Amino acid sequence: MAYDLITLGRIGVDLYPLQTGVPLPQVTSFGKFLGGSAANVAVAAARLGRRTAVITRTGDDPFGTYLHEALRGFGVDDRWVTPVPGLPTPVTFCEVFPPDDFPLYFYRQPKAPDLEIDADGLDLDAIAAARVFWVTGTGLSEEPSRTATLAALAHRDRSGTTVFDLDWRPMFWRDPDAARPCYAEALRHATVAVGNVDEVEIATGVREPHAAAAALLDAGVSLAVVKQGPEGVLAVSRTGESVEVPALPADVLNGLGAGDAFGGSLCHGLLAGWGLERTVRHANAAGAIVASRLECSSAMPTEAEVEAALGAGAVRGTGPAHPPGALR
Amino acid sequence: MAYDLITLGRIGVDLYPLQTGVPLPQVTSFGKFLGGSAANVAVAAARLGRRTAVITRTGDDPFGTYLHEALRGFGVDDRWVTPVPGLPTPVTFCEVFPPDDFPLYFYRQPKAPDLEIDADGLDLDAIAAARVFWVTGTGLSEEPSRTATLAALAHRDRSGTTVFDLDWRPMFWRDPDAARPCYAEALRHATVAVGNVDEVEIATGVREPHAAAAALLDAGVSLAVVKQGPEGVLAVSRTGESVEVPALPADVLNGLGAGDAFGGSLCHGLLAGWGLERTVRHANAAGAIVASRLECSSAMPTEAEVEAALGAGAVRGTGPAHPPGALR
Repeated sequence: MAYDLITLGRIGVDLYPLQTGVPLPQVTSFGKFLGGSAANVAVAAARLGRRTAVITRTGDDPFGTYLHEALRGFGVDDRWVTPVPGLPTPVTFCEVFPPDDFPLYFYRQPKAPDLEIDADGLDLDAIAAARVFWVTGTGLSEEPSRTATLAALAHRDRSGTTVFDLDWRPMFWRDPDAARPCYAEALRHATVAVGNVDEVEIATGVREPHAAAAALLDAGVSLAVVKQGPEGVLAVSRTGESVEVPALPADVLNGLGAGDAFGGSLCHGLLAGWGLERTVRHANAAGAIVASRLECSSAMPTEAEVEAALGAGAVRGTGPAHPPGALR
Repeated sequence: MAYDLITLGRIGVDLYPLQTGVPLPQVTSFGKFLGGSAANVAVAAARLGRRTAVITRTGDDPFGTYLHEALRGFGVDDRWVTPVPGLPTPVTFCEVFPPDDFPLYFYRQPKAPDLEIDADGLDLDAIAAARVFWVTGTGLSEEPSRTATLAALAHRDRSGTTVFDLDWRPMFWRDPDAARPCYAEALRHATVAVGNVDEVEIATGVREPHAAAAALLDAGVSLAVVKQGPEGVLAVSRTGESVEVPALPADVLNGLGAGDAFGGSLCHGLLAGWGLERTVRHANAAGAIVASRLECSSAMPTEAEVEAALGAGAVRGTGPAHPPGALR
């Protein structure tokens, strides 16, 4: 049976402070969580009832074992998660300064195993059969992952829904100037593009949301989604439909992972065949819920939690109050 | 005023499981501690009342800031701790399987800042004036740290007490075969050599403790200390004095750091001018106390704690019982 969603990209161990609002030197303990954008999106969609898998790689070490166990615990198929001998499983620390400052500290040297995803190792039949396929911009930052990501996109060639999460992380690129042509090629094979204003600017050269959405449609996709943080979300389709959804007021604790929750929910709505407005509102609420919680993967909301937030028109968590939300 | 002890070498952030006896995949949270052998030895001696400093380097990041704050908190002078832009402060995870299995997982890629210690940056006058100077084998594993370590040793040239902690960590060496000549050169400038049986074998080619101690004396030192884990400690001096001290029975929780506690206490005894047996018994007890505690730096014992353990003839902690101790 085909998967509802296969994601391809980053995985790692998130180590998030158990004391929030203080700088890293004053943090005394950290919680350990499954992390990484592609993994988080697969978890988010699984939490909403979807059959998902992630294509990624880990170190051949106890943290790699943990990631397998965590994926299976979240109901994400881990059959395409393979070890890379000699490279440690990445770990990521963050600082938590609500409402809007969450610096990340990546330990992905000398190279992240997920950038060793190889085109030869891809199950192209399964990728072609997936109802939604999701790739990220970071997967384009180094070889062999770049070639593998583009090969998978080319093989799909716009059958079904193919999402390109622009996911711009300049620190992962040896040569950031190499990004734009890679992004352009990925967009030619994608049907949906998702990004914040920084990311759409890298992909299109345009920062203003409506102009950027138009540029993404020109670049080849059928649906462009621009996340604008406190200003909400703009989604524009090739058919001319356009919706703007304001941010859901939320008590933000940690904005990290909100974009992945948004992504998993976006896939869920597209799979359900919902209208554009309902899809974006649902994704927006899922993101706001994760922003109100410390962690990413284990914070992904259920359908009932999203519906409750939409019904209440806000997300009230344990963090300091901050209207409006933190999708970025 | 001269320092009682200056150490040169490794520093980093230790992230140790707050759940012990379970493999890393099942650990849910970690405590954050100052770590790294050279830093720990300076902390251990400071806890015993000595005026100490460490020569090392960190990343230019919040964890580096933390290490400065932690050193100062422990009373260790951090004036020679400098940042290296572009290299993250190392972090180290461990698994805690008492009584004798404590695997380490180092994140020191692409290179640890402490291996960027440069001979040009050394305060050779202060190094020469220190009553005890302490270097480690890991400092020889890469340039420019290797040249800096050997330059500092050559500058001291056996004035006062110069300790070479053999500290054999093969994973830090690109070419482990390069170690032996480096170790031989360091021994020519040292007055004291300290190591476990694996380490003395690398330094001398001999594993049997008495033969290894003799070989270390032949290589140039005046005092050879061989740590034999459960079999205790052998110390042999050039003057022909030899003591063997059995391990102190201890409830071992985490053996990591015990060797650094031993080292800091060894310096304390040498500074005090104690006899060899008292010095080694004190160091042995300090090591056993740290082995009974989770962390390294913040677990270093006070004089009163060491005396209490020596008086009781054992260390009773919170970990599972294990006679005898865990010095390795």
